[in-house]
Amino acid sequence: MKIVVDAMGGDFAPHNVVAGVVEAVKEYKVCVTLVGVSDSIEAELKKYQFPKNLIEVVHAPEVVAMDEPATVVIRQKRQSSIGIGIGLLKKEGYDAFVSAGNTGACVAGSTILLGMIPGVDRPGIGCIFPSLKKFTFVMDVGANTAAKPEHILQYARMAKVYAQAVLGRENPTIGLLNIGEEECKGTGLEQESHKLLEEKEPCFVGNLEANEVFTGKTDCIVCDGYVGNIMLKISEGLMESAGKLLKREITKNPIAMLGAVLLKSSLSAAKKSVDYSEYGGAPLLGVDGLVLISHGRSNPKAIKNAIRAAKEQVEHNVLKKIKEEMVKNV
Amino acid sequence: MKIVVDAMGGDFAPHNVVAGVVEAVKEYKVCVTLVGVSDSIEAELKKYQFPKNLIEVVHAPEVVAMDEPATVVIRQKRQSSIGIGIGLLKKEGYDAFVSAGNTGACVAGSTILLGMIPGVDRPGIGCIFPSLKKFTFVMDVGANTAAKPEHILQYARMAKVYAQAVLGRENPTIGLLNIGEEECKGTGLEQESHKLLEEKEPCFVGNLEANEVFTGKTDCIVCDGYVGNIMLKISEGLMESAGKLLKREITKNPIAMLGAVLLKSSLSAAKKSVDYSEYGGAPLLGVDGLVLISHGRSNPKAIKNAIRAAKEQVEHNVLKKIKEEMVKNV
Repeated sequence: MKIVVDAMGGDFAPHNVVAGVVEAVKEYKVCVTLVGVSDSIEAELKKYQFPKNLIEVVHAPEVVAMDEPATVVIRQKRQSSIGIGIGLLKKEGYDAFVSAGNTGACVAGSTILLGMIPGVDRPGIGCIFPSLKKFTFVMDVGANTAAKPEHILQYARMAKVYAQAVLGRENPTIGLLNIGEEECKGTGLEQESHKLLEEKEPCFVGNLEANEVFTGKTDCIVCDGYVGNIMLKISEGLMESAGKLLKREITKNPIAMLGAVLLKSSLSAAKKSVDYSEYGGAPLLGVDGLVLISHGRSNPKAIKNAIRAAKEQVEHNVLKKIKEEMVKNV
Repeated sequence: MKIVVDAMGGDFAPHNVVAGVVEAVKEYKVCVTLVGVSDSIEAELKKYQFPKNLIEVVHAPEVVAMDEPATVVIRQKRQSSIGIGIGLLKKEGYDAFVSAGNTGACVAGSTILLGMIPGVDRPGIGCIFPSLKKFTFVMDVGANTAAKPEHILQYARMAKVYAQAVLGRENPTIGLLNIGEEECKGTGLEQESHKLLEEKEPCFVGNLEANEVFTGKTDCIVCDGYVGNIMLKISEGLMESAGKLLKREITKNPIAMLGAVLLKSSLSAAKKSVDYSEYGGAPLLGVDGLVLISHGRSNPKAIKNAIRAAKEQVEHNVLKKIKEEMVKNV
């Protein structure tokens, strides 16, 4: 198995990416192909000890910046780490691509260079949200901000297969994100998606309000990518701000500071279960290849876990299973 | 000053509403008119001691249930507590209406019975989100799920006046919620709203990503009501689930339990600053009357605080100030 990793992706590349890759190859014994500006990659690699046969470097002269438009990877920078990295998936022997770089560019690049799976019109990013019942798989969190009801149905089918194949839920339930439980609620998109899901997807259990996302009421949640992205980011921001606020209160009071010390292990356990870096990369589903997108702020642990997630997807044959599901409905 | 309160609104009406009203009249010396099924209200009132001259009861034979369609208040149930309560605002001497009932019915009822302020096409619900800089005022959180760029501009103007008049921000900054900082990001709505805001509203400072909502980067945030409602509810759900998760971890470990006891006052202080019931009602802005919408799950404290919020809005003359701002731009 060979996982291709975008060495230039993310706010702290290539440093964090290379550090995460070195940890991953040691821990998971997986081969990684680092794509990017080879001099920079080699300079980082020199800092570590690792089995040399598990990491190869492929040079890509161009870099897509985090704030460049998505289309740049197709129009101007085909020789970027994203362009060349995704391209490798078309060759034999390369199994997945992981990037913490420009999300839009990864989506556009994957769509054009890999093409869509038959039966899927638009790719979607799936994301594991921690919940009281371990997790909820939410799709789409940002690939497609103009979803149509058919796309939502396709997301539901792909999310179902992912939940079964990778997350071990035998009969996953699927909810449609909405602002009320009644089927008349929401905009035209939600109303029509509700009808379509009810008619065509047996795992669909109805609308789900956002306050239920973290209770784990359903295994999967489908929504438009714009709303999904807002949900993901506000959750992240809220946890960060709540942590800061609590810290501010605690440091006002010495007794509370002692309490915080005693609470440390529980706080870390709770924090771990809501920490994005534990979950690694978010799969881009619908394109004809395994692509995982990591957080732009990924630390080495997040990169390592994204590689673990990629390995699991390869082992679970998720791409093949999604293709089989989608072709049934073409 | 007289505040009209929907006695039948919310999941625990009339019990919680009456309890909150009794506390409010004692604490704020404000007159309250309770509207609803008078027998039920009187039965609740009998439980308490309070200055009799501060509470009057107006009978309304019908009740709008929480899950009825918004239009029911106009089409079938004009004699409901919402219909009659809003109607009272048209009479001299009644200053504001507070309801923890069916939000859609309050919005529809207010729009039809009170009419819109000149220069406003659609009402919006404003909501105070706690933030690291005390708060952020977000509008719309659910009145209008099909916002157009002109509505977003109107929300920005009304939010600005509210932040100045009620929340004491002299030169409030306004951000547009979006999935990226660049003006090309988001859907057509965000792209066009960005242009319009930049051209017409000097307080506008640009796009704001959802992870910045709780940092207080801007004083006000404008967005479509669908997305705003999802943001509100996911934040609520996340805090609730994170609290449960932490509790679950703490009870596994006796040392952590001791830590939690020592932390109690800091945890309550932090909790208080993110507790919706501290902020009371969310103003419905744009209609020609002061209407505040409380959480359906309102406890007596939330109702009391909603009455306090209504009183502050009357004292700060917010309706008049919004009218002046909007008429400038007609």
